[in-house]
Amino acid sequence: MIPAELESSIMAAKAKGLVPFYVNATAGTTVYGAFDPFTDIANICEKCGLWMHVDAAWGGGLLLSKKHKLKLQGIEKASSVTWNPHKMMGAPLQCSAILVRQKGLLEACNKQCAEYLFQTDKHYDMSYDTGDKTIQCGRHVDVFKLWLMWKAKGSEGFESQINHCLENAEYLYYKLKSRKDFQLVFQSKPEHSNVCFWYLPSRVRNMSPGPDRDRELHTITSKIKAKLMEKGVAMIGYQPLGEKPNFFRCVFSNPATQKQDVDFLLDEIACLGAEL
Amino acid sequence: MIPAELESSIMAAKAKGLVPFYVNATAGTTVYGAFDPFTDIANICEKCGLWMHVDAAWGGGLLLSKKHKLKLQGIEKASSVTWNPHKMMGAPLQCSAILVRQKGLLEACNKQCAEYLFQTDKHYDMSYDTGDKTIQCGRHVDVFKLWLMWKAKGSEGFESQINHCLENAEYLYYKLKSRKDFQLVFQSKPEHSNVCFWYLPSRVRNMSPGPDRDRELHTITSKIKAKLMEKGVAMIGYQPLGEKPNFFRCVFSNPATQKQDVDFLLDEIACLGAEL
Repeated sequence: MIPAELESSIMAAKAKGLVPFYVNATAGTTVYGAFDPFTDIANICEKCGLWMHVDAAWGGGLLLSKKHKLKLQGIEKASSVTWNPHKMMGAPLQCSAILVRQKGLLEACNKQCAEYLFQTDKHYDMSYDTGDKTIQCGRHVDVFKLWLMWKAKGSEGFESQINHCLENAEYLYYKLKSRKDFQLVFQSKPEHSNVCFWYLPSRVRNMSPGPDRDRELHTITSKIKAKLMEKGVAMIGYQPLGEKPNFFRCVFSNPATQKQDVDFLLDEIACLGAEL
Repeated sequence: MIPAELESSIMAAKAKGLVPFYVNATAGTTVYGAFDPFTDIANICEKCGLWMHVDAAWGGGLLLSKKHKLKLQGIEKASSVTWNPHKMMGAPLQCSAILVRQKGLLEACNKQCAEYLFQTDKHYDMSYDTGDKTIQCGRHVDVFKLWLMWKAKGSEGFESQINHCLENAEYLYYKLKSRKDFQLVFQSKPEHSNVCFWYLPSRVRNMSPGPDRDRELHTITSKIKAKLMEKGVAMIGYQPLGEKPNFFRCVFSNPATQKQDVDFLLDEIACLGAEL
């Protein structure tokens, strides 16, 4: 998100008599793993009286790393934040949190006061009855998984896992940069653990950039994915984005992954893709 | 739901220029465990062109019992049905299903066609990509729990569990009917496994029905619940409903419960409540 563009869009909307009220910034986009400039966005939201939400589903975990948490600077100014510990922190699906700055807001929005559930004449402290804050009623205690993991690993444990994942991403990035049979979707270092790239068989390497080459890359990527699955060696995501043809997206969230796994993946892709 | 009242309410709404479109019938209400007359409701919905939904979250499980499934007669005419196997079938929280008659409707409502998730150039049968039918994206495979249970117990296993729970409810019902220190909220036999009742200490037994007696029952019920918890012997729900003061609601869904547990519960309540 480009702050100047955000501000001019708000102004343009207001000039038309519209009432913008909500900005959704992202910490760790799904495909590229990019972080928005939260401080600048927060200043605009404050100035214009807009609710600032940060979708930190994927990127929120970086707050546990002293090395990487700077990428989330400004998130503390948000009105609300979503965060999925089942993504970067490795909690089993599902484990998702929404944090809202204004105390009592979720209760005020969702409270239904069902008499058959939330009796007001219980003999214990009823502030523990938090069910009326949520949309769902009967539900799994998902946060227990995170609590257990946190007790077992500590913040330091999460930090070293997260740092390790981002080191793997950086390792893959430099590997790709050094090889002629691969091409990065972006030249800059990844902000999160997402690394996006194409594999280029030799006949494509000689083609000049343009629609013909893009069409080839588009098909080659999905064919390699199929071959990886058929051979049973790896599962890696791919997708097109905007005008970019299908590219691989390697995302590290499993702390067990090692540098030799990264080497293995690239060798397999190159081996299966060479003849395409 | 009283079908004649439903029909006259629809007519009254239409006469005012309103457009009723949806009827929510219930199979197994939360407190009383009551079943609506689905066939009559379905006929009215068909005649008036209304969507008929059946909330069978609690009562749906009875379909697995040859003895009790008659209570759901007419549910097959519904446009949609919700059903929570985590309730009567004992699947661990959460396991909930929504069944919709019209094929393709959920997909048409919820489909977002995210290119980065539902690639259309995959090399396998994409009809297995059912994610675009749901509101949630990343989610736990809750149905797997039910599938495993069904494989292990079979329909016969579920049937005998469900019959057993309803037998316990009937046993409790006759016990309560035969005792002077308890009073049933309804005189008729329970339709599901919910049994609703008051405990009457001797001083209340001598009071004539009315607001004073109701006030006493209201307080006594919540006090007994507190005593049961403090003593650590049983947890049983209670609530008021409409003009009825707090009453106990004993709901059987655990197939391990036996008749002697029912006897134990009543004796404990009577013991802790006698002096109140």
